Amino acid sequence: MTVKIGFPDGKSKDYKKGTTPAQIAEEIGIRNIIAAKLDGEIKDLTTPITRDSRLMLLKFEDKEGKEVFWHTSAHVLAQAVTRLYPKAKLTIGPNWENGFFYDIDTDPFHPDDLSKIEKEMEKIVREDHKIERLELDKKEALKTFKDNQYKTELIKEWEDRELTAYKQGEFIDLCKGPHLSRTGLVKAFKLVKVSGAYWKGDQKNKQLQRIYGVSFPEAKQLKEYLTMMEEAEKRDHRMLGKKLELFMFHDWSPGSPIILPKGTIIYNTLLEFIRSEYSKRGYKEVITPQLFNKALWELSGHWQYYTENMFLLKVDDQEFSLKPMNCPSHVLIFKSRTRSYRELPLRIADFCCLHRNELKGVLGGMTRVRKFSQDDAHIFCTEEQIEEEIKSLLDFFKYIYVGVFKLPFRVYISTKPEKAMGTEDQWEKAENSLKKALDASKIPFKLKEGEGAFYGPKIDIDVKDSIGREWQLSTIQLDFQMPNRMGAEYEGADGKKHVPVMIHRALIGTFERFLGVITEHYAGKFPIWLSPEQVRILSVADRFSGYAEKIAKEFSKKGIRATTDTRTESISYKVREAQMEYVNYIIVVGEKEVNDGTVTVRTRDNKILGQFRSDEFLQQLLREVESKTQAS
Amino acid sequence: MTVKIGFPDGKSKDYKKGTTPAQIAEEIGIRNIIAAKLDGEIKDLTTPITRDSRLMLLKFEDKEGKEVFWHTSAHVLAQAVTRLYPKAKLTIGPNWENGFFYDIDTDPFHPDDLSKIEKEMEKIVREDHKIERLELDKKEALKTFKDNQYKTELIKEWEDRELTAYKQGEFIDLCKGPHLSRTGLVKAFKLVKVSGAYWKGDQKNKQLQRIYGVSFPEAKQLKEYLTMMEEAEKRDHRMLGKKLELFMFHDWSPGSPIILPKGTIIYNTLLEFIRSEYSKRGYKEVITPQLFNKALWELSGHWQYYTENMFLLKVDDQEFSLKPMNCPSHVLIFKSRTRSYRELPLRIADFCCLHRNELKGVLGGMTRVRKFSQDDAHIFCTEEQIEEEIKSLLDFFKYIYVGVFKLPFRVYISTKPEKAMGTEDQWEKAENSLKKALDASKIPFKLKEGEGAFYGPKIDIDVKDSIGREWQLSTIQLDFQMPNRMGAEYEGADGKKHVPVMIHRALIGTFERFLGVITEHYAGKFPIWLSPEQVRILSVADRFSGYAEKIAKEFSKKGIRATTDTRTESISYKVREAQMEYVNYIIVVGEKEVNDGTVTVRTRDNKILGQFRSDEFLQQLLREVESKTQAS
Repeated sequence: MTVKIGFPDGKSKDYKKGTTPAQIAEEIGIRNIIAAKLDGEIKDLTTPITRDSRLMLLKFEDKEGKEVFWHTSAHVLAQAVTRLYPKAKLTIGPNWENGFFYDIDTDPFHPDDLSKIEKEMEKIVREDHKIERLELDKKEALKTFKDNQYKTELIKEWEDRELTAYKQGEFIDLCKGPHLSRTGLVKAFKLVKVSGAYWKGDQKNKQLQRIYGVSFPEAKQLKEYLTMMEEAEKRDHRMLGKKLELFMFHDWSPGSPIILPKGTIIYNTLLEFIRSEYSKRGYKEVITPQLFNKALWELSGHWQYYTENMFLLKVDDQEFSLKPMNCPSHVLIFKSRTRSYRELPLRIADFCCLHRNELKGVLGGMTRVRKFSQDDAHIFCTEEQIEEEIKSLLDFFKYIYVGVFKLPFRVYISTKPEKAMGTEDQWEKAENSLKKALDASKIPFKLKEGEGAFYGPKIDIDVKDSIGREWQLSTIQLDFQMPNRMGAEYEGADGKKHVPVMIHRALIGTFERFLGVITEHYAGKFPIWLSPEQVRILSVADRFSGYAEKIAKEFSKKGIRATTDTRTESISYKVREAQMEYVNYIIVVGEKEVNDGTVTVRTRDNKILGQFRSDEFLQQLLREVESKTQAS
Repeated sequence: MTVKIGFPDGKSKDYKKGTTPAQIAEEIGIRNIIAAKLDGEIKDLTTPITRDSRLMLLKFEDKEGKEVFWHTSAHVLAQAVTRLYPKAKLTIGPNWENGFFYDIDTDPFHPDDLSKIEKEMEKIVREDHKIERLELDKKEALKTFKDNQYKTELIKEWEDRELTAYKQGEFIDLCKGPHLSRTGLVKAFKLVKVSGAYWKGDQKNKQLQRIYGVSFPEAKQLKEYLTMMEEAEKRDHRMLGKKLELFMFHDWSPGSPIILPKGTIIYNTLLEFIRSEYSKRGYKEVITPQLFNKALWELSGHWQYYTENMFLLKVDDQEFSLKPMNCPSHVLIFKSRTRSYRELPLRIADFCCLHRNELKGVLGGMTRVRKFSQDDAHIFCTEEQIEEEIKSLLDFFKYIYVGVFKLPFRVYISTKPEKAMGTEDQWEKAENSLKKALDASKIPFKLKEGEGAFYGPKIDIDVKDSIGREWQLSTIQLDFQMPNRMGAEYEGADGKKHVPVMIHRALIGTFERFLGVITEHYAGKFPIWLSPEQVRILSVADRFSGYAEKIAKEFSKKGIRATTDTRTESISYKVREAQMEYVNYIIVVGEKEVNDGTVTVRTRDNKILGQFRSDEFLQQLLREVESKTQAS
């Protein structure tokens, strides 16, 4: 008896029924496999394959591979705690965004306890226990976990008859899995913090101890991660935002940043940068309302699927909402008069603010907000125009991220999910347009099979910052659904009515989030074109203040953001202060400069650039700002 | 027995007790007096003065003078209707913004009936009846109006024991007054329209007939008004907004304009104009939240006095509101850290959108909206800095309205009202600062005695458009109250804490409203710096399309908003279309232009400017845009 195994590259091969993914991996000689995806479900490597299946072998580099790795790490942590604190009761131990945690009912841990637990974990890893999956019926399970009221509660709530547990050495835990095959694989880990938590997140329940950890297959990866975290902490945008007075938050408007004058300069400069590209690239900007009647959201489908993220209110005794997205209002504009194929592609851009009701608990800094604006645009086009439009979007993307920000990136196409609107033929054409456009633009990409939205396939782009963290900023989504649903149509060359395709796209993404990300990327040292204060002119003594003011005025007139510091403080004090505030160029003027009509310039990193004629230095500044580079 | 009468110029004089304002006006030889203001209350000219009083004689030019004039006009209308339609029942007849109306329970009027009624009104005016005030007790009043259920209802609801009615000839109407002394004074009037209305505005009640009229003391004024209205209708911004695709409205967001691409260009150009002035004039722009907790509005006082204008909603199970004003959030920014006197004046500017819950019935076009943005700023300064700040605000104002828009204006100072916060001394100093600043800026002004806000005096500026209508656009308000109430303070040179003064100011005012006003002012023919389409290049035949595109590209590169029309249509057709869309310059290119590298230019008013070298014409365009003028 054989089973046919299909691989991601489209090839397939017959194997003996009961063969495990581990055996297949060994046969093809792939190492460092963590788990397997069988027909879309993640399984232990030791799962016997009993029917024809699609197989994908997961490594730590895959998102789902990481999840399995971290889940096993949580079990190693739990085993260590159980050995050291026999009275501790385990509750649940899932992944979190950067690793794993376990909630434990026990006396509060001291941070010092963590190293004791780490030592025990190292022992468990050295012992290299085999990890076994056990299938239990409810009765057996209740017997096995009878001393733990939390696990008992979970077992009773369990809907199926069968449950699973995982065993490693003397330790057994109730768990759906899957897991690594041996504890010895958790080569590198660190417990990073301990905090309070509540059983089922409910403050009425007893407080538990939550231990957070991170783990990796290699010690080198752990070291890199810890270095990155240390670096990330130093450039945390919340800390820098306060120090550099870029933005602030207030309890009376949670999730809505107050962007201070210096932050607003960066924000507006970014926005103007995008706006100036829009005028070159044929976009038309509009300004749209904040409040819309429920009727709009019912027509667009948001009322049915998205209300929990919307801020609702009564207007004229009817249900209204603050808009969470611009797309439906752009369809109203499209529909406001008869449209001809000659007007397509019609690219409608909108910087108006949006509101989404994120849970208060998940709000954080500029990267998780409730109120924000995006470089949002919707392109209405024909099916034939998709490829060309995507190509010009990729060109736009490259201009921003390669040309200006010089950041590496990774591109993914998410394809048709199981539940999807539109015909097979439409999807195939659309996915092919995306692929062809990426190929033509010489941009490599990976597929995320089945991860498209129900209304169309999309391109997601992850951008890597200066300390290696990846941020999903840009998105390009095809939509066959909304224009049809909302009754948008145009008159074709054939004189008949057709439904346009809609492309939802944002390249910067959310400006607030982008501002947070680049604050960390540059560690607050913004390049000159974005910098809130580009030049500060310091006078060596009172009698040179007039000259300093004159230079500042000349620079300001040409659009350079220049200030003066003419206080009676020592010049070294004034230089240090300007450097602490990351002013790009610091000019010192005294006797010599006044006599020669020059300026002496140094950078925020204390590099002395020397003496320049002031008009020549101004020209250099203008060139740097214009070209969005900085010489220093 | 004498009474002391105080006049607006500060002088006073003794008169015999019982003297009437009419006698005083005659004595000092002032003509065309309509009514009198006695200690702030408006009275008939025939009212005997029985105690020491402040007296102001009102003319038609005064707002309250107009109101009395129009009110008497409504009585003349009512008398005419009663003569012609004896079964008609009168209800109420107040002023509206441009005249008067009367709501009457009768069979529907035909528009032709209006001229019949006008004829009867002319007769009543010629009859020149004396208008007498009658004081009635409730019983007498009920008897007098027993045949009219509406007046009966009003009398029963009346809270005082005494009521008044006014009698002219055979006609008597229940009315608080005051009124003109004779019907003969209503020299010029016109009934402008008739529409349906409901008793007490309630649709459940019977429908009434509402007749609208306008009236003036002189025939010439009526003629001018009617000409202006005719002109206003031709340039109605709602009509032009649709025709030129500047903005649109949708029932699903009442009062929130959707600003279309061309309108957005004008909007953003205006905003950028103000923003560029801000950077020259030391303003710091911020971006603030839309939603704020009730706690903020309680602290600012808006919760107590302004909630009916606010859109309320629940956030995290607490009361929140969409902000109707920026000021409280700017105080939060001021308070976000210790402030020193060295930072003052601190000028915080904000273009974020605001929401005010205007009644749906009063919304109209761009001039009465619920969602809008302003060129709003708040200046925190010391009392000593007020005068200097006001001077620079007046300079800013003059730059906008004299320098750029070239519009005449009138300035008013509104002084301390009866109920006011702050000491006499503070008010006097503040009012003097305003006066001194206006004097120093050589700007004449009038006083609006007692019309300041409770928190401080203010300067209001009315701007006159090209057809003579006045718009209150700019406001400059001093506020001694909010910084104190919200706990804003700075450290003075003396090392002690002081409360800053706050200046609320907007010069453009609401951008939406301004856009509506200038659309009408320019009748849609925007000056080149604001124009959505500055140049259109038309090709005489297909083979010149390339040259047209080349010119358009060169112009666009320099920031000129240039398009092409290379369709295979006759050149006269294409010229006419561009002129209908008010494109500033229309360029035609053919054989000759291609050979010579030139362009042939005409204006939207069909003035032929001739042939230019294309780079020379581009330079001229850039100069016009830069200087905000247009040669043509």
